[in-house]
Amino acid sequence: MNQTEPKDAIVLLSGGLDSATTLAIARDAGYTCHALSFDYGQRHRFELEAAARVTESLGVTEHRVVKIDLSATGGFGHSALTDQIAVPKDRDDDDGEIPVTYVPARNTIFLAIALGYAEVTGAFDIFIGVNAVDYSGYPDCRPEFIDAFTKLANLATAAGVEGKGKFEIRAPLIEMTKAEIIRMGLSLGVDYSLTHSCYDPDSAGAACGHCDSCRLRLAGFAEADATDPGIYAAS
Amino acid sequence: MNQTEPKDAIVLLSGGLDSATTLAIARDAGYTCHALSFDYGQRHRFELEAAARVTESLGVTEHRVVKIDLSATGGFGHSALTDQIAVPKDRDDDDGEIPVTYVPARNTIFLAIALGYAEVTGAFDIFIGVNAVDYSGYPDCRPEFIDAFTKLANLATAAGVEGKGKFEIRAPLIEMTKAEIIRMGLSLGVDYSLTHSCYDPDSAGAACGHCDSCRLRLAGFAEADATDPGIYAAS
Repeated sequence: MNQTEPKDAIVLLSGGLDSATTLAIARDAGYTCHALSFDYGQRHRFELEAAARVTESLGVTEHRVVKIDLSATGGFGHSALTDQIAVPKDRDDDDGEIPVTYVPARNTIFLAIALGYAEVTGAFDIFIGVNAVDYSGYPDCRPEFIDAFTKLANLATAAGVEGKGKFEIRAPLIEMTKAEIIRMGLSLGVDYSLTHSCYDPDSAGAACGHCDSCRLRLAGFAEADATDPGIYAAS
Repeated sequence: MNQTEPKDAIVLLSGGLDSATTLAIARDAGYTCHALSFDYGQRHRFELEAAARVTESLGVTEHRVVKIDLSATGGFGHSALTDQIAVPKDRDDDDGEIPVTYVPARNTIFLAIALGYAEVTGAFDIFIGVNAVDYSGYPDCRPEFIDAFTKLANLATAAGVEGKGKFEIRAPLIEMTKAEIIRMGLSLGVDYSLTHSCYDPDSAGAACGHCDSCRLRLAGFAEADATDPGIYAAS
């Protein structure tokens, strides 16, 4: 992507491997990046700390953290990521089931808030690190979901309706394997030691090595012939 | 709508005239209603107090209030409803402009959170009191927006993808005039003295009578040959 003038982009940043790589891709494409993270009752703060480290390392214009109380209302956050449900370990990922780590409508909510932020900022590009290959079974990580949100974004906003520009939801990782993502990130200088992927870290933030997210990450590094610089709990 | 078995519905409830009427319509159609309101940095609390009164009056299974910090992050809530921007009075509503009371992506954000709530609750019907006739110029109050969100909802969720049901975004007021809405509500027993519509109430909660919302409401009651039981500031 060659651009003569920098364009603004919103980049959803969880602090994990995928979103850090996505930010690096957006930066490399010449975008002025506004990072957006969410404090939505995650069971641990390591994700948000990782997001802050990643923005410092890669460079952004601003980093906003939106607090949204999905867990306090009881019904939301009905997930192993926000409730006291056990995170599954060493799960058979070919079981065809949507895992208990699924948070209902999470990416829809995140993209909706990113859209509002984009409209205020004047950005028309929203980057999200979803991935449909190693996607762990989440419905809101598929290309058809991204396409549907793009259509919605251009109907939902003053900026879209008034024709000031066309919103694009950019999901550069969507067709990549985890190994391809890691190779891409390494080539762009991403320091993966700053990222946090584990669903179930210990009290010091060390990764468990056995949840879906750890297993995908470790397998990806192995396939990419690279060493994961993340810290894992001895077990 | 005749239903042999009660179905669950999420009803977005601001505490205004339109959403109160929408709740009455959903109740009348036989739905078990879960009301959902948002505390998103409104300049006044009268809306949320009105929402609570309306749920007590009409009856709901539960009423959840989700707190979402859109104003504290600076960039969001770039609107006369959440910022210190003057609410326009006695505006010419044929000026073709989207008014400053527009909150970027508001209905997208609200419907996204309602979708997550619906998925947890097992509801497939989400009611929203948007209106495209007296809609004050907001892009996210139009039928094409509702249609696009419906498509998204069925792609975004485990419940939609697994075929447990089909999400429907129900906007029963969308083609009605304000007078028709008021007549419908009165026929269903809505006590409009409990509702709050004004964008710029005084410190006691009395309506200003001159903002877009007050003017639409007053004109609607006049056209419906009914008296607005709301309290207006003397001026």
